[in-house]
Amino acid sequence: MADKCFVIGALLYPDYDLLDFNGTIRFLGSLESEQNLNVKIITISETGKKCNSASQCSNWADYSFDDCPEFDVLLIPGGKSYRKEIENSALIKFIDKWIPKVKYVLMVCSASAFVAKTGHLDCKKATSNKSEFDRIVEYGPNVNWIKHGRWIVDGKFYSSGGGMDMALAWISDVFGEKTAFKAAHRAEYVWNHNPALDPFSGMNFKENVGVLDFHSSK
Amino acid sequence: MADKCFVIGALLYPDYDLLDFNGTIRFLGSLESEQNLNVKIITISETGKKCNSASQCSNWADYSFDDCPEFDVLLIPGGKSYRKEIENSALIKFIDKWIPKVKYVLMVCSASAFVAKTGHLDCKKATSNKSEFDRIVEYGPNVNWIKHGRWIVDGKFYSSGGGMDMALAWISDVFGEKTAFKAAHRAEYVWNHNPALDPFSGMNFKENVGVLDFHSSK
Repeated sequence: MADKCFVIGALLYPDYDLLDFNGTIRFLGSLESEQNLNVKIITISETGKKCNSASQCSNWADYSFDDCPEFDVLLIPGGKSYRKEIENSALIKFIDKWIPKVKYVLMVCSASAFVAKTGHLDCKKATSNKSEFDRIVEYGPNVNWIKHGRWIVDGKFYSSGGGMDMALAWISDVFGEKTAFKAAHRAEYVWNHNPALDPFSGMNFKENVGVLDFHSSK
Repeated sequence: MADKCFVIGALLYPDYDLLDFNGTIRFLGSLESEQNLNVKIITISETGKKCNSASQCSNWADYSFDDCPEFDVLLIPGGKSYRKEIENSALIKFIDKWIPKVKYVLMVCSASAFVAKTGHLDCKKATSNKSEFDRIVEYGPNVNWIKHGRWIVDGKFYSSGGGMDMALAWISDVFGEKTAFKAAHRAEYVWNHNPALDPFSGMNFKENVGVLDFHSSK
């Protein structure tokens, strides 16, 4: 395992989802200090400055689109601003440029809309945010969209409804399941490690169904 | 509900836990835009500058300890640096100063060690990070520490192992359960809404137990 080195380039854009970004990086960015694995994180925004999330809180970008160094894994968070940002040609151009160069593309939630727009998801299986699913699929008419699935893997493309569960799945695929569970447990997070267990794919979000759980069923 | 206004002061310190901070704020900081509730977030660090987490990623501080405005809820993330930071007199002094002024204190994971050190948790029930539990209790010999519990409430003090579940519990207590579930569902997060369901309190973290779940038990 020690010979596996990854630089993860994590993308920021205005009104990104705070949990999509930081929840995944909590696991990926701690592999080095907690498990002695060679995984570096760099954060990237269009301007290289801080970026405001949709939850009144900001993350810092280490690099701009123009000055970022090479990286191996592209991590893209979702965001309620995706319908606006998908028209941001600098963002889509950046994603389009890096996809052929990286080993993996990790898409959280609505991020798969951006990748679909580049055409790189054509003929590939992918999922996305469930409350916006019907709109998102329109950005990729040639994508093999699958609504039910906590996350979906097709080659180097990881797409998801739940980004933290997907990030742990990537860790499991690359470094082994024990490493993924350890990463989850250190954060006191219960990994939904079964991608077929997706309680959100059939939800009517407008009706606010109230109690939903699989925790209390044990 | 519309008459309830809160400013949440969220604390940053070196090597804080990225998920403790942003996971909770994902729910709290989106109540305004997603559910039209009057909940503002301000982020605070000793210097008022960005702060590096333990996961190679930084959040931005809006204010310093000296220039931050009034707030109603103090949110403190945990961090693997807690044993170093508990000796940071500026941090402990800031927490000690604000606790009597705020309506609620939300402590994620090892953050309860900081509050215990101020003495404000004396004779109160509290929980904390489970892998560090035996060390943390030493910082509050007069606290009524309870190991088993996803979160514990005693008056205005909310302490937790899992910060996101606790943040949703606070939202439920203040704004109602439907609001909390809606906040969770919008983020496609399955809220563990039963505080007695704590799979980490009995875990031997050193042995890395591998599979742990309550998801697959459906």
